[in-house]
Amino acid sequence: MGIYVHGYSETEACRLADQADTLAELLHASVRFPKGSRVLEAGCGVGAQTIHLARNNPDSLFTCFDASGESIMKARERLDQAGLSNSRFEIADVYNLPYEAGSYDYVFVCFLLEHLREPETALSVLRRVLADGGSITVIEGDHGSYYCHPRSPAADQAVQCLIELQARKHGNSLIGRQLYPLLAGSGFREAHVTPRMVYVDASRPDLVEGFTRRTFIAMVEGVKEEALSAGLIDEASWNKGIADLNRSTHEDGTFCYTFFQATAMK
Amino acid sequence: MGIYVHGYSETEACRLADQADTLAELLHASVRFPKGSRVLEAGCGVGAQTIHLARNNPDSLFTCFDASGESIMKARERLDQAGLSNSRFEIADVYNLPYEAGSYDYVFVCFLLEHLREPETALSVLRRVLADGGSITVIEGDHGSYYCHPRSPAADQAVQCLIELQARKHGNSLIGRQLYPLLAGSGFREAHVTPRMVYVDASRPDLVEGFTRRTFIAMVEGVKEEALSAGLIDEASWNKGIADLNRSTHEDGTFCYTFFQATAMK
Repeated sequence: MGIYVHGYSETEACRLADQADTLAELLHASVRFPKGSRVLEAGCGVGAQTIHLARNNPDSLFTCFDASGESIMKARERLDQAGLSNSRFEIADVYNLPYEAGSYDYVFVCFLLEHLREPETALSVLRRVLADGGSITVIEGDHGSYYCHPRSPAADQAVQCLIELQARKHGNSLIGRQLYPLLAGSGFREAHVTPRMVYVDASRPDLVEGFTRRTFIAMVEGVKEEALSAGLIDEASWNKGIADLNRSTHEDGTFCYTFFQATAMK
Repeated sequence: MGIYVHGYSETEACRLADQADTLAELLHASVRFPKGSRVLEAGCGVGAQTIHLARNNPDSLFTCFDASGESIMKARERLDQAGLSNSRFEIADVYNLPYEAGSYDYVFVCFLLEHLREPETALSVLRRVLADGGSITVIEGDHGSYYCHPRSPAADQAVQCLIELQARKHGNSLIGRQLYPLLAGSGFREAHVTPRMVYVDASRPDLVEGFTRRTFIAMVEGVKEEALSAGLIDEASWNKGIADLNRSTHEDGTFCYTFFQATAMK
């Protein structure tokens, strides 16, 4: 089981909700399931993605699992508050699922594989619970896809701290670019990967605020103490890195990040 | 006037033609001009882009200029051979254009600004020859947007040689991410930038061959002697870098690069 690099704080729960709201249209707009579909969401966390999936697909039934009981409670509460009743939440281990082989039509995975020590094994297990002819959708980021203008070695170093800390927890924040070989290697067929690049400049103030500041920079800032404790960076360099990331949100700055969305068939 | 980092060899002319053919659909599919448009193509080189523009817009008249008389001759020959008569070619300096103010409806710029010492000045001059209400389309790459799987510091180092050599010639191969501020800074309004990301995996053999190998890796390989002469890298590291770039074209490899397409109004 992976260790979640971003932690489980209230701030983090808010960051995830902000992130999901801003990204929902970009990442989920094309995710529609036929009426009556049985969908398994792996690693649903606090339900940040689930709420959009359940709302956009009212005639599908979602089974959502996560390793964290606390996250599951929050997810259930969130969906209840939204008045959505087409999802159930369970604690489960992605490497040892309590579901029968072939019992789901679709599997949805978002921001999970990056935190796992053995993503290919997890995909093999998820493939097993998928019905023949069923399909999987996987959405992951890739922190190595980030770049901005003006360029800043200090900003790169701060982002590298996040990449390194996630790697030390046996995660892989560069996994987006690897979805194709991972899906092919775990037995799926017809893997198709679509990059979902987020490009931000001053003409897109919603993305400047919702993505660059409140999603990406907030995520990097979240590992400050850990990065300093681990001796990966000194505080002055860290502060310069964060300041330079914020610099890219100015009138003449730009920011780029790419998510990868993959689909594949059993 | 910029110095063209890639040189003017026959091999380079072939690389540009390969590149343009593979990329034409990705980069030009949306470039259509109304009937009767007067279009100025700045930095047309050997006509690698012109042939697609002229063919896709038979009722527009193209004036195409470049600093190199040799390139202009090749471009003219290429369009003649294709039986396209809606373009004329001229030698001109982008900083000192021989055209009247307001004499064009559209300006098209592709892979030019990256080679210029003063891209913002060039854009200001191009804006002057544009009619009021006319628009500019700019397409540029960004070598800092490249990444691949498996990751390789040696491959990164080889690509960095190309970036550094272009910078020493007062070019900027990281200009794609800067199009928005450059256009805004040179007086254009309503600048809108669209990233055109090229994602390549084994399910896309045409791109593996046409883009990763014959466009990108060929471009990096083109500066080998110069990089070695300049002492930017030793030969063993260079060879490892190129081998690792080629490694990303294998069955389990992936490759990413992003072009930026911008439009803006006078």
